[in-house]
Amino acid sequence: MFSPLTNQLIEALRNLPGIGPKSAQRLAFHLLTEKGQAKGLALSAALQQAVERIGHCQQCRIYTEHSLCDICSNPKRKSALLCVVESPADVIAIEQTNSYSGHYYVLQGHLSPLDGIGPEEIGIPLLLDRIKNSSIDELIIATNPTTEGKATAHYIASHVNSDQTKCSRIAHGVPIGGELEYLDGGTLAHALLSRIPLLQK
Amino acid sequence: MFSPLTNQLIEALRNLPGIGPKSAQRLAFHLLTEKGQAKGLALSAALQQAVERIGHCQQCRIYTEHSLCDICSNPKRKSALLCVVESPADVIAIEQTNSYSGHYYVLQGHLSPLDGIGPEEIGIPLLLDRIKNSSIDELIIATNPTTEGKATAHYIASHVNSDQTKCSRIAHGVPIGGELEYLDGGTLAHALLSRIPLLQK
Repeated sequence: MFSPLTNQLIEALRNLPGIGPKSAQRLAFHLLTEKGQAKGLALSAALQQAVERIGHCQQCRIYTEHSLCDICSNPKRKSALLCVVESPADVIAIEQTNSYSGHYYVLQGHLSPLDGIGPEEIGIPLLLDRIKNSSIDELIIATNPTTEGKATAHYIASHVNSDQTKCSRIAHGVPIGGELEYLDGGTLAHALLSRIPLLQK
Repeated sequence: MFSPLTNQLIEALRNLPGIGPKSAQRLAFHLLTEKGQAKGLALSAALQQAVERIGHCQQCRIYTEHSLCDICSNPKRKSALLCVVESPADVIAIEQTNSYSGHYYVLQGHLSPLDGIGPEEIGIPLLLDRIKNSSIDELIIATNPTTEGKATAHYIASHVNSDQTKCSRIAHGVPIGGELEYLDGGTLAHALLSRIPLLQK
Protein backbone atom coordinates (compact mmCIF):
# COMPACT_ATOMS: atom_id res chain seq x y z
CA MET A 1 0.00 0.00 0.00
CA PHE A 2 2.96 2.29 0.71
CA SER A 3 5.81 3.07 -1.62
CA PRO A 4 8.93 0.91 -1.05
CA LEU A 5 10.94 3.74 0.56
CA THR A 6 8.08 4.59 2.92
CA ASN A 7 7.84 0.92 3.88
CA GLN A 8 11.57 0.82 4.50
CA LEU A 9 11.32 3.81 6.83
CA ILE A 10 8.34 2.33 8.71
CA GLU A 11 10.18 -0.99 9.06
CA ALA A 12 13.31 0.75 10.40
CA LEU A 13 11.23 2.64 12.98
CA ARG A 14 9.36 -0.53 13.95
CA ASN A 15 12.62 -2.18 14.92
CA LEU A 16 12.99 0.26 17.81
CA PRO A 17 11.94 -1.08 21.23
CA GLY A 18 8.46 -0.04 22.30
CA ILE A 19 7.40 1.09 18.82
CA GLY A 20 4.67 -0.98 17.21
CA PRO A 21 3.33 -0.92 13.65
CA LYS A 22 0.86 1.94 14.27
CA SER A 23 3.38 4.16 16.06
CA ALA A 24 5.99 3.47 13.36
CA GLN A 25 3.51 4.54 10.68
CA ARG A 26 2.59 7.66 12.62
CA LEU A 27 6.25 8.58 13.16
CA ALA A 28 7.09 7.97 9.49
CA PHE A 29 4.24 10.17 8.28
CA HIS A 30 5.27 12.84 10.74
CA LEU A 31 8.87 12.75 9.52
CA LEU A 32 7.72 13.09 5.91
CA THR A 33 5.74 16.29 6.49
CA GLU A 34 7.44 19.57 5.64
CA LYS A 35 7.92 20.40 9.31
CA GLY A 36 9.14 16.91 10.12
CA GLN A 37 11.79 16.62 7.42
CA ALA A 38 14.32 18.77 9.30
CA LYS A 39 13.82 16.59 12.39
CA GLY A 40 14.28 13.48 10.27
CA LEU A 41 17.55 14.69 8.79
CA ALA A 42 18.78 15.77 12.24
CA LEU A 43 17.92 12.35 13.64
CA SER A 44 19.59 10.62 10.72
CA ALA A 45 22.80 12.60 11.23
CA ALA A 46 22.72 12.16 15.03
CA LEU A 47 22.27 8.40 14.65
CA GLN A 48 25.12 8.04 12.20
CA GLN A 49 27.50 10.15 14.30
CA ALA A 50 26.47 8.37 17.48
CA VAL A 51 26.96 4.87 16.08
CA GLU A 52 30.27 5.80 14.47
CA ARG A 53 31.84 7.79 17.28
CA ILE A 54 30.32 6.81 20.63
CA GLY A 55 32.15 4.01 22.41
CA HIS A 56 32.58 2.87 25.99
CA CYS A 57 34.45 4.75 28.71
CA GLN A 58 37.66 2.77 29.30
CA GLN A 59 37.14 2.82 33.03
CA CYS A 60 33.38 2.47 33.67
CA ARG A 61 32.02 1.25 30.30
CA ILE A 62 29.35 3.98 30.07
CA TYR A 63 28.73 5.43 26.58
CA THR A 64 31.00 8.32 25.64
CA GLU A 65 32.90 9.56 22.60
CA HIS A 66 35.97 10.29 24.75
CA SER A 67 38.30 7.73 26.29
CA LEU A 68 37.08 8.62 29.80
CA CYS A 69 33.55 9.77 30.62
CA ASP A 70 32.70 12.97 32.54
CA ILE A 71 32.21 11.09 35.80
CA CYS A 72 35.45 9.09 35.63
CA SER A 73 37.48 12.16 34.67
CA ASN A 74 35.96 14.32 37.43
CA PRO A 75 38.62 14.71 40.20
CA LYS A 76 35.95 15.72 42.75
CA ARG A 77 34.33 12.27 42.80
CA LYS A 78 35.39 9.78 45.47
CA SER A 79 37.52 7.20 43.70
CA ALA A 80 37.42 4.78 46.66
CA LEU A 81 33.67 4.23 46.23
CA LEU A 82 32.45 2.17 43.28
CA CYS A 83 28.84 1.43 42.32
CA VAL A 84 28.09 -1.44 39.93
CA VAL A 85 24.97 -1.04 37.78
CA GLU A 86 23.48 -2.91 34.84
CA SER A 87 22.86 -0.08 32.39
CA PRO A 88 23.76 3.56 31.67
CA ALA A 89 20.14 4.49 32.47
CA ASP A 90 20.77 3.26 36.03
CA VAL A 91 23.71 5.67 36.30
CA ILE A 92 21.40 8.52 35.33
CA ALA A 93 18.77 7.42 37.85
CA ILE A 94 21.35 7.35 40.66
CA GLU A 95 22.95 10.63 39.59
CA GLN A 96 19.56 12.33 39.69
CA THR A 97 19.21 11.51 43.38
CA ASN A 98 22.26 13.73 44.10
CA SER A 99 23.14 11.35 46.92
CA TYR A 100 26.12 9.49 45.47
CA SER A 101 29.51 10.94 44.72
CA GLY A 102 31.61 7.89 43.90
CA HIS A 103 32.43 6.24 40.60
CA TYR A 104 30.39 3.76 38.58
CA TYR A 105 30.95 0.55 36.71
CA VAL A 106 28.36 -0.27 34.03
CA LEU A 107 28.01 -3.97 33.24
CA GLN A 108 25.89 -3.30 30.14
CA GLY A 109 23.76 -6.33 30.98
CA HIS A 110 23.54 -9.11 33.54
CA LEU A 111 24.63 -12.74 33.76
CA SER A 112 22.32 -14.83 31.60
CA PRO A 113 23.90 -18.18 30.73
CA LEU A 114 20.95 -19.24 28.52
CA ASP A 115 21.60 -16.24 26.27
CA GLY A 116 25.33 -16.96 26.27
CA ILE A 117 26.09 -14.01 28.52
CA GLY A 118 28.78 -14.99 31.01
CA PRO A 119 31.11 -12.90 33.20
CA GLU A 120 33.36 -12.02 30.24
CA GLU A 121 30.49 -10.50 28.23
CA ILE A 122 29.53 -8.07 30.98
CA GLY A 123 33.11 -7.08 31.78
CA ILE A 124 33.38 -8.66 35.22
CA PRO A 125 37.11 -9.57 34.83
CA LEU A 126 37.84 -5.89 34.11
CA LEU A 127 35.81 -4.89 37.18
CA LEU A 128 37.64 -7.39 39.43
CA ASP A 129 41.00 -6.16 38.07
CA ARG A 130 40.01 -2.60 38.86
CA ILE A 131 38.94 -3.50 42.40
CA LYS A 132 42.20 -5.40 42.97
CA ASN A 133 44.50 -2.74 41.53
CA SER A 134 42.92 0.53 42.65
CA SER A 135 42.22 1.23 46.29
CA ILE A 136 38.47 0.74 46.38
CA ASP A 137 37.15 0.74 49.93
CA GLU A 138 33.53 -0.01 49.21
CA LEU A 139 31.75 -1.70 46.34
CA ILE A 140 28.00 -0.96 46.13
CA ILE A 141 26.18 -3.44 43.94
CA ALA A 142 23.03 -1.91 42.43
CA THR A 143 21.97 -4.52 39.90
CA ASN A 144 18.22 -4.91 39.41
CA PRO A 145 16.24 -7.03 41.90
CA THR A 146 15.55 -9.70 39.26
CA THR A 147 16.80 -13.28 39.27
CA GLU A 148 19.59 -12.39 36.82
CA GLY A 149 20.46 -9.20 38.69
CA LYS A 150 20.67 -11.10 41.98
CA ALA A 151 22.82 -13.82 40.41
CA THR A 152 25.14 -11.16 38.97
CA ALA A 153 25.41 -9.44 42.37
CA HIS A 154 26.16 -12.74 44.07
CA TYR A 155 28.80 -13.66 41.46
CA ILE A 156 30.58 -10.32 41.85
CA ALA A 157 30.42 -10.37 45.66
CA SER A 158 31.82 -13.90 45.78
CA HIS A 159 34.84 -12.85 43.69
CA VAL A 160 35.73 -9.75 45.69
CA ASN A 161 38.32 -10.03 48.48
CA SER A 162 36.16 -8.91 51.40
CA ASP A 163 39.15 -8.10 53.60
CA GLN A 164 40.24 -5.37 51.21
CA THR A 165 36.90 -4.13 49.89
CA LYS A 166 33.59 -3.86 51.72
CA CYS A 167 30.84 -5.16 49.48
CA SER A 168 27.21 -4.03 49.86
CA ARG A 169 23.96 -4.19 47.96
CA ILE A 170 21.40 -1.38 47.80
CA ALA A 171 18.29 -1.94 49.95
CA HIS A 172 15.11 -3.36 48.43
CA GLY A 173 11.75 -2.96 50.12
CA VAL A 174 8.70 -0.75 50.37
CA PRO A 175 9.18 2.40 48.24
CA ILE A 176 9.12 5.67 50.21
CA GLY A 177 5.63 7.15 49.86
CA GLY A 178 4.24 3.79 48.74
CA GLU A 179 1.37 2.19 50.61
CA LEU A 180 1.61 -1.38 51.85
CA GLU A 181 -1.93 -2.01 50.64
CA TYR A 182 -1.01 -1.54 47.00
CA LEU A 183 2.43 -3.19 47.07
CA ASP A 184 3.04 -6.52 45.32
CA GLY A 185 3.49 -9.56 47.54
CA GLY A 186 7.08 -10.25 46.48
CA THR A 187 8.33 -6.83 47.51
CA LEU A 188 6.43 -6.96 50.78
CA ALA A 189 7.78 -10.44 51.60
CA HIS A 190 11.29 -9.19 50.85
CA ALA A 191 10.75 -6.11 53.01
CA LEU A 192 9.64 -8.34 55.91
CA LEU A 193 12.65 -10.63 55.55
CA SER A 194 15.08 -7.71 55.30
CA ARG A 195 13.71 -5.91 58.37
CA ILE A 196 16.17 -3.72 60.24
CA PRO A 197 16.16 -3.41 64.06
CA LEU A 198 14.95 -0.05 65.34
CA LEU A 199 16.76 1.81 68.11
CA GLN A 200 20.08 0.10 67.42
CA LYS A 201 22.55 0.44 70.29
CA MET B 1 25.65 13.84 32.58
CA PHE B 2 25.80 12.37 29.09
CA SER B 3 28.46 12.98 26.50
CA PRO B 4 27.55 15.69 23.95
CA LEU B 5 26.92 13.22 21.10
CA THR B 6 24.68 11.06 23.31
CA ASN B 7 22.76 14.19 24.31
CA GLN B 8 22.40 15.14 20.67
CA LEU B 9 20.95 11.71 19.84
CA ILE B 10 18.53 11.81 22.80
CA GLU B 11 17.43 15.32 21.78
CA ALA B 12 16.83 14.22 18.17
CA LEU B 13 14.72 11.26 19.34
CA ARG B 14 12.80 13.46 21.77
CA ASN B 15 11.65 15.66 18.91
CA LEU B 16 9.57 12.79 17.56
CA PRO B 17 5.86 12.91 18.41
CA GLY B 18 4.86 10.71 21.34
CA ILE B 19 8.42 10.21 22.55
CA GLY B 20 9.21 11.79 25.91
CA PRO B 21 12.55 12.25 27.67
CA LYS B 22 12.56 8.78 29.26
CA SER B 23 11.65 6.95 26.04
CA ALA B 24 14.22 8.97 24.09
CA GLN B 25 16.90 7.97 26.60
CA ARG B 26 15.84 4.34 26.43
CA LEU B 27 15.84 4.34 22.63
CA ALA B 28 19.24 6.05 22.49
CA PHE B 29 20.81 3.52 24.86
CA HIS B 30 19.24 0.71 22.87
CA LEU B 31 20.64 2.06 19.61
CA LEU B 32 24.11 2.33 21.14
CA THR B 33 24.31 -1.34 22.18
CA GLU B 34 26.14 -3.72 19.87
CA LYS B 35 22.87 -5.26 18.69
CA GLY B 36 21.24 -1.87 18.26
CA GLN B 37 23.94 -0.22 16.17
CA ALA B 38 22.90 -1.99 12.95
CA LYS B 39 19.30 -0.87 13.52
CA GLY B 40 20.53 2.66 14.16
CA LEU B 41 22.50 2.80 10.92
CA ALA B 42 19.58 1.28 8.99
CA LEU B 43 17.22 3.90 10.46
CA SER B 44 19.68 6.68 9.70
CA ALA B 45 19.95 5.60 6.07
CA ALA B 46 16.19 5.05 5.70
CA LEU B 47 15.48 8.52 7.12
CA GLN B 48 17.94 10.22 4.82
CA GLN B 49 16.67 8.40 1.72
CA ALA B 50 13.06 9.01 2.69
CA VAL B 51 13.48 12.73 3.28
CA GLU B 52 15.51 13.17 0.12
CA ARG B 53 13.49 11.05 -2.27
CA ILE B 54 9.89 10.75 -1.05
CA GLY B 55 7.56 13.44 -2.34
CA HIS B 56 3.84 13.76 -3.00
CA CYS B 57 1.87 11.88 -5.65
CA GLN B 58 1.01 14.46 -8.32
CA GLN B 59 -2.58 13.37 -8.36
CA CYS B 60 -3.57 12.51 -4.78
CA ARG B 61 -0.77 14.08 -2.69
CA ILE B 62 -0.02 10.85 -0.77
CA TYR B 63 3.67 10.16 -0.04
CA THR B 64 5.54 8.33 -2.78
CA GLU B 65 8.94 8.43 -4.47
CA HIS B 66 7.30 8.09 -7.90
CA SER B 67 5.31 10.75 -9.72
CA LEU B 68 2.10 8.74 -9.29
CA CYS B 69 1.35 6.49 -6.29
CA ASP B 70 0.32 2.83 -6.55
CA ILE B 71 -3.36 3.65 -6.10
CA CYS B 72 -3.49 6.44 -8.70
CA SER B 73 -1.59 4.37 -11.26
CA ASN B 74 -3.75 1.27 -10.74
CA PRO B 75 -6.10 0.98 -13.77
CA LYS B 76 -8.47 -1.31 -11.83
CA ARG B 77 -9.57 1.44 -9.45
CA LYS B 78 -12.73 3.42 -10.25
CA SER B 79 -11.58 6.83 -11.40
CA ALA B 80 -15.08 8.34 -11.13
CA LEU B 81 -15.12 7.91 -7.34
CA LEU B 82 -12.95 10.19 -5.22
CA CYS B 83 -12.51 10.12 -1.45
CA VAL B 84 -11.05 13.15 0.34
CA VAL B 85 -9.12 12.43 3.55
CA GLU B 86 -6.92 14.46 5.88
CA SER B 87 -3.85 12.26 6.14
CA PRO B 88 -2.10 9.30 4.46
CA ALA B 89 -2.89 7.25 7.58
CA ASP B 90 -6.59 7.70 6.77
CA VAL B 91 -5.97 6.20 3.31
CA ILE B 92 -4.42 3.15 4.96
CA ALA B 93 -7.36 2.84 7.38
CA ILE B 94 -9.88 2.94 4.52
CA GLU B 95 -7.83 0.59 2.34
CA GLN B 96 -7.73 -1.96 5.16
CA THR B 97 -11.53 -2.19 5.13
CA ASN B 98 -11.37 -3.57 1.56
CA SER B 99 -14.66 -1.80 0.87
CA TYR B 100 -13.54 1.10 -1.29
CA SER B 101 -12.15 0.88 -4.79
CA GLY B 102 -12.03 4.49 -5.93
CA HIS B 103 -9.26 7.07 -5.82
CA TYR B 104 -8.17 9.28 -2.95
CA TYR B 105 -7.20 12.87 -2.40
CA VAL B 106 -5.05 13.56 0.66
CA LEU B 107 -5.33 17.11 2.03
CA GLN B 108 -2.33 16.62 4.36
CA GLY B 109 -4.12 18.65 7.01
CA HIS B 110 -7.35 20.57 7.54
CA LEU B 111 -8.46 24.19 7.36
CA SER B 112 -7.16 26.01 10.41
CA PRO B 113 -7.11 29.77 9.87
CA LEU B 114 -5.53 30.46 13.27
CA ASP B 115 -2.48 28.40 12.25
CA GLY B 116 -2.39 30.11 8.86
CA ILE B 117 -3.68 27.02 7.05
CA GLY B 118 -6.13 28.06 4.35
CA PRO B 119 -7.48 26.25 1.26
CA GLU B 120 -4.20 26.78 -0.67
CA GLU B 121 -2.09 25.06 2.01
CA ILE B 122 -4.15 21.87 1.93
CA GLY B 123 -4.36 21.75 -1.86
CA ILE B 124 -8.08 22.46 -2.26
CA PRO B 125 -7.66 24.44 -5.54
CA LEU B 126 -5.92 21.38 -7.06
CA LEU B 127 -8.76 19.16 -5.81
CA LEU B 128 -11.44 21.45 -7.28
CA ASP B 129 -9.55 21.57 -10.61
CA ARG B 130 -9.41 17.80 -10.64
CA ILE B 131 -13.14 17.49 -9.92
CA LYS B 132 -13.94 20.01 -12.66
CA ASN B 133 -11.66 18.52 -15.29
CA SER B 134 -11.97 14.78 -14.77
CA SER B 135 -15.32 13.06 -14.81
CA ILE B 136 -15.83 12.45 -11.10
CA ASP B 137 -19.34 11.24 -10.35
CA GLU B 138 -19.14 11.11 -6.61
CA LEU B 139 -16.98 12.87 -4.05
CA ILE B 140 -16.88 11.19 -0.63
CA ILE B 141 -15.59 13.53 2.06
CA ALA B 142 -13.99 11.58 4.92
CA THR B 143 -12.35 14.32 6.96
CA ASN B 144 -12.28 13.77 10.73
CA PRO B 145 -15.40 14.59 12.78
CA THR B 146 -13.64 17.50 14.49
CA THR B 147 -14.52 21.18 14.18
CA GLU B 148 -11.72 21.72 11.66
CA GLY B 149 -12.58 18.54 9.75
CA LYS B 150 -16.24 19.58 9.52
CA ALA B 151 -15.30 23.08 8.37
CA THR B 152 -13.02 21.60 5.71
CA ALA B 153 -15.78 19.26 4.53
CA HIS B 154 -18.24 22.15 4.36
CA TYR B 155 -15.79 24.34 2.44
CA ILE B 156 -15.12 21.65 -0.16
CA ALA B 157 -18.79 20.74 -0.55
CA SER B 158 -19.76 24.38 -1.04
CA HIS B 159 -17.24 24.74 -3.89
CA VAL B 160 -18.25 21.61 -5.81
CA ASN B 161 -20.79 21.92 -8.61
CA SER B 162 -23.47 19.58 -7.27
CA ASP B 163 -25.11 19.13 -10.67
CA GLN B 164 -21.99 17.45 -12.01
CA THR B 165 -20.65 15.70 -8.93
CA LYS B 166 -22.58 14.08 -6.10
CA CYS B 167 -20.99 15.08 -2.80
CA SER B 168 -21.34 12.93 0.34
CA ARG B 169 -19.82 12.65 3.76
CA ILE B 170 -19.12 9.35 5.55
CA ALA B 171 -21.55 8.49 8.34
CA HIS B 172 -20.75 9.29 11.94
CA GLY B 173 -22.53 7.60 14.81
CA VAL B 174 -22.42 4.61 17.14
CA PRO B 175 -19.48 2.33 16.23
CA ILE B 176 -20.47 -1.18 15.17
CA GLY B 177 -20.04 -3.44 18.20
CA GLY B 178 -20.02 -0.44 20.52
CA GLU B 179 -22.51 -0.20 23.35
CA LEU B 180 -24.64 2.91 23.83
CA GLU B 181 -23.97 2.78 27.56
CA TYR B 182 -20.26 3.47 27.13
CA LEU B 183 -20.49 5.94 24.26
CA ASP B 184 -19.67 9.61 24.76
CA GLY B 185 -22.58 12.04 24.74
CA GLY B 186 -21.43 13.94 21.65
CA THR B 187 -21.39 10.87 19.44
CA LEU B 188 -24.73 9.67 20.78
CA ALA B 189 -26.35 13.10 20.23
CA HIS B 190 -24.98 13.10 16.67
CA ALA B 191 -26.26 9.56 16.09
CA LEU B 192 -29.75 10.64 17.25
CA LEU B 193 -29.78 13.70 15.01
CA SER B 194 -28.55 11.71 12.00
CA ARG B 195 -31.10 8.94 12.39
CA ILE B 196 -32.11 7.14 9.20
CA PRO B 197 -35.69 5.96 8.54
CA LEU B 198 -36.09 2.19 8.69
CA LEU B 199 -38.12 0.26 6.08
CA GLN B 200 -37.70 2.95 3.43
CA LYS B 201 -40.20 2.62 0.58
